[in-house]
Amino acid sequence: MKRPVDHNDGGEFQSPALENLVRHLNRLPGLGRKSATRIALHLVGKESPAQELEAAITEARSKVTNCSSCGAITESDPCRICTSTSRDATSVCVVSTAVDVLPFEKAGFFQGKYFVLGGLLSPLDGVRARDLPFERLMERIEADKVQELIIALDSSVEGETTSLYIQSLLEGKDINLTRLATGIPVGGALAFTDEVTLQRAYLYRRGV
Amino acid sequence: MKRPVDHNDGGEFQSPALENLVRHLNRLPGLGRKSATRIALHLVGKESPAQELEAAITEARSKVTNCSSCGAITESDPCRICTSTSRDATSVCVVSTAVDVLPFEKAGFFQGKYFVLGGLLSPLDGVRARDLPFERLMERIEADKVQELIIALDSSVEGETTSLYIQSLLEGKDINLTRLATGIPVGGALAFTDEVTLQRAYLYRRGV
Repeated sequence: MKRPVDHNDGGEFQSPALENLVRHLNRLPGLGRKSATRIALHLVGKESPAQELEAAITEARSKVTNCSSCGAITESDPCRICTSTSRDATSVCVVSTAVDVLPFEKAGFFQGKYFVLGGLLSPLDGVRARDLPFERLMERIEADKVQELIIALDSSVEGETTSLYIQSLLEGKDINLTRLATGIPVGGALAFTDEVTLQRAYLYRRGV
Repeated sequence: MKRPVDHNDGGEFQSPALENLVRHLNRLPGLGRKSATRIALHLVGKESPAQELEAAITEARSKVTNCSSCGAITESDPCRICTSTSRDATSVCVVSTAVDVLPFEKAGFFQGKYFVLGGLLSPLDGVRARDLPFERLMERIEADKVQELIIALDSSVEGETTSLYIQSLLEGKDINLTRLATGIPVGGALAFTDEVTLQRAYLYRRGV
């Protein structure tokens, strides 16, 4: 039992092509090497959904675009939220990325419209005010006579900076500027709440 | 606030093509809807690795096959394990699927060869002895003068049934038939070991 093990190219798989597929899948967000391996083996299997998957990727890439008005993900430009007559154009929710629109639309309670910034102010990363569409936001506020602007940005340093900047832009204007509440999530266990969230929840406590 | 929300086709995305891509990704093993959404948005993004990924899938599907001798995943048939002269052909590890070869090869300690059954005996699912390559296994044992057969099958009812069947096939032959040890995993916490494993670990306890 002292002979050396015969190591193969293509890693543990004996197949560089499979190894390559695993490597590509492994680069997708949230996929570790084990999940990538499982999916790769599924894709090369006999009843593989590979062709349908490839077709779906190609179709999505050709059709999906961003609304030129609000920045949301859409296939028709302007998007159906922007062109909807049953939604309230005077209430605008400002989000960082197109993905941030999804939880709102999934929940379905918000009847206003959106404005996607496409990023957050971050001087350290070279993202300055002129790099984000604040001018377009101000035009939109004028054109649609916006009455309430709901800031729904990450509560990171960049999110806070961007919130403050929007606040400064709206100074003196007759617009109701609000932010999403910070606090303990519904169903969240108090014992496992991080200190910052707990402190905020205490700070913004409501009368009962 | 009493107007109905304007619900769109294409689900929360405003895009049937994106929704379709999420649905396809969601069908892959181990991918929930949230992970599928995250990957779909990544794939339709500007710096998308979609083309490389599609090429990798196509290449893997065209190249990856199973070794006609042992059944392992390979690009060249017979595989490099079967054709290796530095591995011991008289020691054969019997596994259920080609994937089961991977942990052995990753660990690298096993210097014998493999035999992939491609399934387990399961009368209830209609998998009988004639559906599995037991004849080929017996021929291999004769041809390679196999001295040790290591059974590395799942410890399910099907795995046990298959083990017993192989045992019956080898009755009277001068072959060392072994099985992987059952017990508590290395690093496994005793407190969280299930009762069956614990009982087995007790049953097969070793003298110190």
